[in-house]
Amino acid sequence: MTEPTYVVGHQQPDTDTICSALAYARLKQEQGTAAVAARAGDVNPETEFVLDRWDVDAPELLEDAAGEQLILVDHNEYSQTVTGARDAEVVEIVDHHRIGDVETSSPILFRNEPVGSTATILTQLFDDADETITTQTAGLLLSGLLSDTVVLRSPTTTERDRTVAARLAEIADVDYESYGKELLMHKSKIGEKSPREMVLSDFKEFQFDSRKVGIGQIETVEPSVVLDQRDAVLEAMEEIATERDYAVFLLLVTDLLEEDSTALVAGPEIATVEDGLDTMFSDREAFLPGVMSRKKQVVPPLEDAFY
Amino acid sequence: MTEPTYVVGHQQPDTDTICSALAYARLKQEQGTAAVAARAGDVNPETEFVLDRWDVDAPELLEDAAGEQLILVDHNEYSQTVTGARDAEVVEIVDHHRIGDVETSSPILFRNEPVGSTATILTQLFDDADETITTQTAGLLLSGLLSDTVVLRSPTTTERDRTVAARLAEIADVDYESYGKELLMHKSKIGEKSPREMVLSDFKEFQFDSRKVGIGQIETVEPSVVLDQRDAVLEAMEEIATERDYAVFLLLVTDLLEEDSTALVAGPEIATVEDGLDTMFSDREAFLPGVMSRKKQVVPPLEDAFY
Repeated sequence: MTEPTYVVGHQQPDTDTICSALAYARLKQEQGTAAVAARAGDVNPETEFVLDRWDVDAPELLEDAAGEQLILVDHNEYSQTVTGARDAEVVEIVDHHRIGDVETSSPILFRNEPVGSTATILTQLFDDADETITTQTAGLLLSGLLSDTVVLRSPTTTERDRTVAARLAEIADVDYESYGKELLMHKSKIGEKSPREMVLSDFKEFQFDSRKVGIGQIETVEPSVVLDQRDAVLEAMEEIATERDYAVFLLLVTDLLEEDSTALVAGPEIATVEDGLDTMFSDREAFLPGVMSRKKQVVPPLEDAFY
Repeated sequence: MTEPTYVVGHQQPDTDTICSALAYARLKQEQGTAAVAARAGDVNPETEFVLDRWDVDAPELLEDAAGEQLILVDHNEYSQTVTGARDAEVVEIVDHHRIGDVETSSPILFRNEPVGSTATILTQLFDDADETITTQTAGLLLSGLLSDTVVLRSPTTTERDRTVAARLAEIADVDYESYGKELLMHKSKIGEKSPREMVLSDFKEFQFDSRKVGIGQIETVEPSVVLDQRDAVLEAMEEIATERDYAVFLLLVTDLLEEDSTALVAGPEIATVEDGLDTMFSDREAFLPGVMSRKKQVVPPLEDAFY
């Protein structure tokens, strides 16, 4: 039997990561690769809604990737990969983030583009390969695209994302504005979580120089649900920062309707964050007008400040 | 005035690197970017022949890239970039090598594909952008493709390279077999060089774990021109290894007609090379049957051996 190639997204998977793993595994299968869609962690409520809506099983949980062949989607740094990835062989990468620290011995396909979602690039790859996008696959890709771009409202959104979204919506036979609103509603289902679960639900770790920095984001139409319990949230963040030896744990509470964020911060190096984001924290909280994208508006200035 | 974006290939530029910089700068200009083709070092005799044949000026020599915006073509690791690249902003990468150590703060276009030449990928980018490939640009791209694939004979050659070569040859209005032979003839003009110039003329430095490794390659139809002066060549290699603190300096003398290589080696860690290449050096020389590609057949096993 051929060894499978796992198509896997980042830890704390979001809808773009899960749907990209599913869609790209399908494309690779069509092309004759023994590809298996996988995930690096639990599926969030928004993604559960999507899988249910399009009647697709969740990807297989990959607990340890050591020794396996991996196609990374929606990420390209080791601090965000599945456990064991450093001892796996990375055979392809499709992503839309900054270029991270994954190195390979041999030449591989690495397709990274500055667009709003990995699903946008995958749609192109289906076209390049002349493979038909089924209604179900279009539903998955559209969900990834709309989730990552906050229904085309995030500053990461490009013209190409808009064109691709319109086309996928047609194939999937949905109105993308109203379908997108359903997604956002499920993204906001955070009230029932513990503070610790809440701050880790969409969380990424970065290595800036010699320091580890954690950046979480909660995208919601009701920021008050989080901010009303800010002391408990800050306590959970402080705990995690200590456990994991973070220089900083930054949490963005992003208001999807007002299109801005409130930042909470824990860890010893708060001054570096103030410097990077050109803001001042008062009682560990700062308001960031216009900030919706961790990737585009927060990671680059923070990285600069830490180096 | 808009700041230019430099499109630049690797140090010790070869024909694919120079022609890719020229062709991609043209495409970016068509798309409205103030792109300038640049080079990180002297143009070799084969490339001089190509520039003369297609009546194109050599790219501008970029002596220090610090503070500039860079598009890297045909490489993606700092040990091979132009001076000052670590203090420049890398805004795009198009390449066909292993994934190296370049990291960015923001998402960028990084298009790396396991094909025979960067020119092959650039031809696709012209098509994707719906831009016409002129006779002159086709001549440049075809030269890069034929040079890097040793006229489609190298094991790195893919079906796509063959298809693209046929198409470019039609636009450029040349017979690619006979044009390719002209290229090889010029590639082989090594007799008039000093041993030091010879071993550094197509040379790449790698960082494997904590050690620096230099790997040079001389592709020729007359390996005897090099091997007849092997003592002088080995002396030059030993000198360079000491100056630059290399664990190993490996030189591949590749016979383009027989499609194999003779390896010469200098530096303290010869046993690691023997281990990696599964060979034994006798008097610092080993025969490597079937080996033509540094990138595909030498770098990956050597990297494994050093880690």
